[in-house]
Amino acid sequence: MENKKEINAGILIIGNEILSGRTKDLNTSTLSKWLNSIGIKVSEVRIIPDVEKTIIDNLNILRKNYNYVFTSGGIGPTHDDITAQSVSKTFNLDYEIHKEAYEILEKYYGKEKFNEGRQRMVWMPSKANLILNPASGAPGFNVENVFCLPGVPSILESMLPGLQNKLVGGDPILNRSINLITVESEIAKSLEQVQIDNIDVDIGSYPFFRMGKVGVSIVFRSIEQAKIDKCYNEVKKFVEQKNIEIVEKN
Amino acid sequence: MENKKEINAGILIIGNEILSGRTKDLNTSTLSKWLNSIGIKVSEVRIIPDVEKTIIDNLNILRKNYNYVFTSGGIGPTHDDITAQSVSKTFNLDYEIHKEAYEILEKYYGKEKFNEGRQRMVWMPSKANLILNPASGAPGFNVENVFCLPGVPSILESMLPGLQNKLVGGDPILNRSINLITVESEIAKSLEQVQIDNIDVDIGSYPFFRMGKVGVSIVFRSIEQAKIDKCYNEVKKFVEQKNIEIVEKN
Repeated sequence: MENKKEINAGILIIGNEILSGRTKDLNTSTLSKWLNSIGIKVSEVRIIPDVEKTIIDNLNILRKNYNYVFTSGGIGPTHDDITAQSVSKTFNLDYEIHKEAYEILEKYYGKEKFNEGRQRMVWMPSKANLILNPASGAPGFNVENVFCLPGVPSILESMLPGLQNKLVGGDPILNRSINLITVESEIAKSLEQVQIDNIDVDIGSYPFFRMGKVGVSIVFRSIEQAKIDKCYNEVKKFVEQKNIEIVEKN
Repeated sequence: MENKKEINAGILIIGNEILSGRTKDLNTSTLSKWLNSIGIKVSEVRIIPDVEKTIIDNLNILRKNYNYVFTSGGIGPTHDDITAQSVSKTFNLDYEIHKEAYEILEKYYGKEKFNEGRQRMVWMPSKANLILNPASGAPGFNVENVFCLPGVPSILESMLPGLQNKLVGGDPILNRSINLITVESEIAKSLEQVQIDNIDVDIGSYPFFRMGKVGVSIVFRSIEQAKIDKCYNEVKKFVEQKNIEIVEKN
């Protein structure tokens, strides 16, 4: 099996409400799972405040370090929505009315209800490509490798299918897991040996507590199913030797 | 009212399971809310993989940029737990058995059950100060301004009260919110004026969808209650003029 080049991404979550702890970030999980499924590995996530200079500085680092950058938040109609103007400055592009976005929203709301607040959402970097929004009209956009999505989780999720044909992924990252009723320290040494013997598979160990039981999920991740299955069987073997119970986690 | 210096923090979430989307990050929200309550503002969060160089590079940036750094994850007994050795290298300290931690865990598990896997959890940077763990024995630790906590949310949460006397906060960051049955574009312009007139208060606007209703939460944050209340009243005034319904969100 010939390996494609790894395609990776950084995520930039923009919003004081996440940093204050008021709102839990759900978009990292949604985006990461979806990107994995199309062969793009998320290498880093940063959560930053609604501050223009901070947004620009982080975009400039992430867009150089990774194949793709996905931003979440700050593209609505209020004063704290400054992602589009920040992206314009990042790429030295004019911040202007995007004609296609204007037409989409004028049609979506109707001429009368397309007020000043809503018109703010069609100001974008010149040359931005739209990312259509089936849930609520207002599109996201991308400039080069930076893709700007909204912060509201359900709206972000609705936009992912429309995004897929704009991205080039590598091989999908596959995973398999085994859930054990044990504690990590009982299996640490044997598990480490499996990892040493199989360096192409990323093996993670995650304790869980559920229904009064203490358990450990072992997760195998790789682009090759056969290598995952080899690790799985090696773990299963030592687990059975140790008389450790295997369970469904859910 | 005399303002203290702002005390800020960065959070470093260490773990492939968060980046893959398999596990949702709950620790940012828990830590941020708690830090806010003791007057420490979270300025940035980074989520990174279990890779030693990545951990060291990020620690070196965050510990210089912020008063405090809190890490979550990677201090358990398995091969993918590499936070303690990474912190040792960050500070050029030996990675060695911490005597006090050894005694705590030997007592916690009993001599017989304190096996090799569990003993791995007492290897720490020399000079590390322990952060006690009432939930599951194995302590966290800090070196200078870097505080290392576990990834399991319930255990992390149990360790926060024991951490409080190690931290010096500024004034607590207060907040108040008002929830409206409206859309952001209807209030964007009036709200922006309130923000312009009250630059010491951080005003955020967050759409919500609940029970078939579309709403907006306006959140006011500041270290001064009087300034928050002034903004709240200004928003309430224009909201009533526009005949917008005010609701409890939950």
